[in-house]
Amino acid sequence: MTTQQLIDQIQTKKSFLCVGLDVDLNKIPQHLLELEDPIFEFNKAIIDATHDLAVSYKPNTAFYEAYGIKGWMSLQKTINYINSTYPDIFTIADAKRGDIGNTSSMYAKAFFEDLNFDSVTVAPYMGKDSVEPFLAFENKHTIMLALTSNEGAFDFQTLNVNGKELYKQVLETSKTWKNSENLMYVVGATKAEYFTEIRKIAPDSFLLVPGVGAQGGSLAEVCKYGMNANVGLLINSSRGIIYASNGTDFVEKARAEALKMQQEMAAIMSLKFEV
Amino acid sequence: MTTQQLIDQIQTKKSFLCVGLDVDLNKIPQHLLELEDPIFEFNKAIIDATHDLAVSYKPNTAFYEAYGIKGWMSLQKTINYINSTYPDIFTIADAKRGDIGNTSSMYAKAFFEDLNFDSVTVAPYMGKDSVEPFLAFENKHTIMLALTSNEGAFDFQTLNVNGKELYKQVLETSKTWKNSENLMYVVGATKAEYFTEIRKIAPDSFLLVPGVGAQGGSLAEVCKYGMNANVGLLINSSRGIIYASNGTDFVEKARAEALKMQQEMAAIMSLKFEV
Repeated sequence: MTTQQLIDQIQTKKSFLCVGLDVDLNKIPQHLLELEDPIFEFNKAIIDATHDLAVSYKPNTAFYEAYGIKGWMSLQKTINYINSTYPDIFTIADAKRGDIGNTSSMYAKAFFEDLNFDSVTVAPYMGKDSVEPFLAFENKHTIMLALTSNEGAFDFQTLNVNGKELYKQVLETSKTWKNSENLMYVVGATKAEYFTEIRKIAPDSFLLVPGVGAQGGSLAEVCKYGMNANVGLLINSSRGIIYASNGTDFVEKARAEALKMQQEMAAIMSLKFEV
Repeated sequence: MTTQQLIDQIQTKKSFLCVGLDVDLNKIPQHLLELEDPIFEFNKAIIDATHDLAVSYKPNTAFYEAYGIKGWMSLQKTINYINSTYPDIFTIADAKRGDIGNTSSMYAKAFFEDLNFDSVTVAPYMGKDSVEPFLAFENKHTIMLALTSNEGAFDFQTLNVNGKELYKQVLETSKTWKNSENLMYVVGATKAEYFTEIRKIAPDSFLLVPGVGAQGGSLAEVCKYGMNANVGLLINSSRGIIYASNGTDFVEKARAEALKMQQEMAAIMSLKFEV
């Protein structure tokens, strides 16, 4: 998918919502456990109920790998279902991969070719040659960790290097890499005030923003400081939507939560882009 | 596996060799491609030919994920084969994972419980709560990236923070985490002179050392600066051993390369620990 197609979808749906498909068998409605592939059936139901409100789905690979080969099969069925049924959706493999060059090429092959995701998240610690193999894929997007939403973000990401915080150095350095126009960044919503600084370094990039909802970040604050002329944000919600109910009404409750977020997003967009 | 069992194995075999199982279907002997599971058959042949010379095997997950579900099945068969046939072997899932706390717990479950590896490699960028879930597993080991062997290592890992290089800060901070005695570290062999500094911070930890062989590092140099009283090193070789030949003699050639390294290691150990 091209960046322009993502932008068009955001304008059409008046939404920049990403739904995180972090499926834990202990948290989904227990009646689904009788089915052959509860993880896929849960995802399918959530996707069918929210696809007009969300522009993106983001399975986190950890939740699939934890169930071994069965989990990997559920992941494959989920991405195939999205790609065949809702081809306008922007898909994110939240995998946080990264390795030396020839090895990163294999990861890129896994997520961009074998599974056919539009994007994958990567970790920056190993530097240029660990990320560039992902960037080489045309119309695929590489979403690099910059400033994450967890407590441990302050262990290293905000340390001062060369007179600036490490995450800013990571952003700046990454912009010098080959095909860096294929980069997006992960920036946690729990630190809305940081978006002003980040937008000075990466004014045009899309930012994937976890931490709204369960982790306490504010949508309005993130938009105030982080939005650009193309919106430029993908706001992720996982638990707040997919676990809105664990009863037989989980589909309706998930849709209601997604709708609430989409309406808030539409309101923010109409204020921001009013003519 | 306990650390003491690993140490005992090193003393018995007079080896601290780790064989990297980075299996690329384009590089293995082509006659294996006729078999049902060429990746597993290749691994099995390499393991059978070198298990008395190596103390550890390290499949890199990228090479398995690139082949999708079939690849994941080959990985599972490989780890099951090692665990059932050579239970004294220390197994490493080279996965370089890391995510927010509850998600890292799922990765830990995937590698320590579902696949039953003795250890997994992790990335430090997301800090404490991304690593501690791995450390909570008893007699399992978490091998964190400190200073890697690739060119991109110099992008961020050696930047100056608080008057020291980032990788040293990563080492120091990690030692304050809960169950940090379950940590080992990845330190690239291409920078042997760094080992002196690293041993000041982590004198007792095991270090997993890639970069000897194909990437140009020297075994003697690494041992000179990096060995401790328990050896404390796992020297990885992947391509140098497993692709020593891509003909029908690949097993013999791989064994010959492994034997060469084991003999060099035995010589270094006898010099270092002579009574």
